[in-house]
Amino acid sequence: MSKNQNDEIVANLADVARRAARTLVKASYEERKKALLAIADALEENKNRIIEANLSDMEKGRSAGLNSQLLDRLMLNEARISGIASGARQVAVLPNPLGNILRERTLENGLHLQQITVPFGVVGMVYEARPNVTVDAAVILLMSGNAALLRGSSSAESSNEILVKVMREALAKTPISPEVIQLIPSNDRDTTRALLNARGKVDLVIPRGSAALIRMVVDESTVPTIETGAGVCHVYVDSKADLEKALPILINSKCHRPSVCNAAETLLVHQEVAPEFLPIAIKALHGAGVVLHCDQTSLNVAQKLEIPASLVQEENWSTEYGVLEMNIGVVSSLVAAVDHILKYGTNHTEAIVTESPENADAFIALSDCAAVMVNASTRFTDGEQMGFGAEIGISNQKLHARGPMGLEQMTTTTWIVRGNGQIRK
Amino acid sequence: MSKNQNDEIVANLADVARRAARTLVKASYEERKKALLAIADALEENKNRIIEANLSDMEKGRSAGLNSQLLDRLMLNEARISGIASGARQVAVLPNPLGNILRERTLENGLHLQQITVPFGVVGMVYEARPNVTVDAAVILLMSGNAALLRGSSSAESSNEILVKVMREALAKTPISPEVIQLIPSNDRDTTRALLNARGKVDLVIPRGSAALIRMVVDESTVPTIETGAGVCHVYVDSKADLEKALPILINSKCHRPSVCNAAETLLVHQEVAPEFLPIAIKALHGAGVVLHCDQTSLNVAQKLEIPASLVQEENWSTEYGVLEMNIGVVSSLVAAVDHILKYGTNHTEAIVTESPENADAFIALSDCAAVMVNASTRFTDGEQMGFGAEIGISNQKLHARGPMGLEQMTTTTWIVRGNGQIRK
Repeated sequence: MSKNQNDEIVANLADVARRAARTLVKASYEERKKALLAIADALEENKNRIIEANLSDMEKGRSAGLNSQLLDRLMLNEARISGIASGARQVAVLPNPLGNILRERTLENGLHLQQITVPFGVVGMVYEARPNVTVDAAVILLMSGNAALLRGSSSAESSNEILVKVMREALAKTPISPEVIQLIPSNDRDTTRALLNARGKVDLVIPRGSAALIRMVVDESTVPTIETGAGVCHVYVDSKADLEKALPILINSKCHRPSVCNAAETLLVHQEVAPEFLPIAIKALHGAGVVLHCDQTSLNVAQKLEIPASLVQEENWSTEYGVLEMNIGVVSSLVAAVDHILKYGTNHTEAIVTESPENADAFIALSDCAAVMVNASTRFTDGEQMGFGAEIGISNQKLHARGPMGLEQMTTTTWIVRGNGQIRK
Repeated sequence: MSKNQNDEIVANLADVARRAARTLVKASYEERKKALLAIADALEENKNRIIEANLSDMEKGRSAGLNSQLLDRLMLNEARISGIASGARQVAVLPNPLGNILRERTLENGLHLQQITVPFGVVGMVYEARPNVTVDAAVILLMSGNAALLRGSSSAESSNEILVKVMREALAKTPISPEVIQLIPSNDRDTTRALLNARGKVDLVIPRGSAALIRMVVDESTVPTIETGAGVCHVYVDSKADLEKALPILINSKCHRPSVCNAAETLLVHQEVAPEFLPIAIKALHGAGVVLHCDQTSLNVAQKLEIPASLVQEENWSTEYGVLEMNIGVVSSLVAAVDHILKYGTNHTEAIVTESPENADAFIALSDCAAVMVNASTRFTDGEQMGFGAEIGISNQKLHARGPMGLEQMTTTTWIVRGNGQIRK
């Protein structure tokens, strides 16, 4: 397809979606809720059709030589489909994110002001192999009154097509138009570019996936975007740390699920507690299977313990490993720890272990991130853990939403000003 | 200068500003307030230096052939400097936008969550001739804890330099580092590009000025931006309108200050009230000096009244005149009015004149704009009018902030999670 043809395809899908979104705006909270439950039921009722389509993606993926990690992300089975359906049911019972009054006042001239939450309108999602995102994103967007333009991976093409088909069949039995969910063809890379440049047609694009995907979206998009994901998170063990708390926090932050963005990549230890903490930390990390990249001080400790470790390189400090590898460094002060974090971190989640409220406050004020954990694992930066009920991603930027994004973050606002003929003098 | 040199200049200024911003984070609300009052005093005390520098810009502008409107925007005199100073004093007494708790909860595992407001960090402003923006933006950013990277117009170079110098001299006597205000050289167009691409160094860029400037910023920026300004606003006179309210609202919306973004450009009249309203509206607009672009129905009315008017052209409907010109059209229904608005408008401010609450609600739900006026002039979409105290611009986008932006909109949030050793199971 030519550039222009893809622009036209995406513009048409966006126009159809925007018009259909009027049925979403008109639908009551109860009607949106019922639509989500209908989608959940339909997914389970059609599990065989879904698994069949997914098998064809899996076969294509195997012949294309996808690695086992990617194949695992692509795979749908009965349990996973039930999981996706139960996710939709959880979103259905969340509080209504629309029509909430955020600010309200009556001016001296009698004008009555209300700032209320409203949908964005048409929201694009650009994502990679996992087909569950197709449903997760669609239901969060529907519940927040938005039409969804979904651009998944070509490797999940058949799975995404059947999931969208099943969701649309379910919507056809509700007052909400099935056209509020649109799948953008993934057979041409250029359709992503077209989506990112559908300015005026698409209100927001959210990328979900690798750092490379997110950087591409941010660089190329003229549509407003919310950057998600990249997490080079740190655990800082302060001079005033309770080291008995520090060890389980460290191990949980690194090892509980190393592939996700809120896993820790670097341990920073204050020099005053380093002699006591480094040996137990290095032993425990090694025992948990973590490959160690150490600064000179911690390398000496590892060598004394006869634990394999390499000297950390400059690029290690800013690497999101996603696997069981970790950097270890000793810092001379809390401010030195913060300076390190600001230099190499991604403003995602930073943890401090300290018994000093003053040191905690200083760390909070300076570390400039979406979430600061004081004496807790970095793994808690998560929509479900934090009580959002569901998340469409974790915002890594400061504009609009920071940290986990749920239904509320998928709304914008309108000012409603009611008068009886007021004019400006 | 080469591209790389400009990138380096801007990166250095941003680094200096970010480090200096720590003094802003540490400063108490009272200290920030006093710094703003010191700036206001210093501006008035140094009015002669400021006027002198401004005179040199004015002279250069005259020899360069700037038109009288641009020269007027550029001009500073004693009254305008007092106005700028009193603006700073108004911002100084606004409520503290920082450290406010937006959400708070304790989870079952004992974790205590708070979402608090924090500064963005380093905010860039790109703007045109008016030197007052240099101070207006700096004081709003300082009060909200942000360092300011200011990129004004080269035509206001001397004025901007002296204003920044005076503000920095005032800050030198406070605990806040003068380096939190940085002026980006305006002698090279490429410094704007460098600012827009200082990703990771600059947290946010706000453009203020012409539609062309804003479009350029949105297209070129990899730093997150908030689009401001463009306003093609409509006044819709509904079938259920009180026509005695409609006329003053129409005249005020168009004529009170036609150069600003919340002025109306198009009048839409429901066909049922058109026979009665069009003659009085056309007479009144003509009487107020408004040049008329009419659809066929309203053109017939104008011709019968012997009032000069031209047939409206397709491009007129989407033109932000900024002067006393207006389009007039008759629509068959409220939905037809909304369709017109969505096609040609800029999602800024839309007014409906109606006595029907149902029609008002339908218009509110469908018109997809930052502010809906029900029986009031479009001119009320304004930070001061709406009780914000001061505004740094009017957001024309849906992300982060919509409508007037004051101190609160110049903050982002951090999640603070306090525990006593919690890990994720």
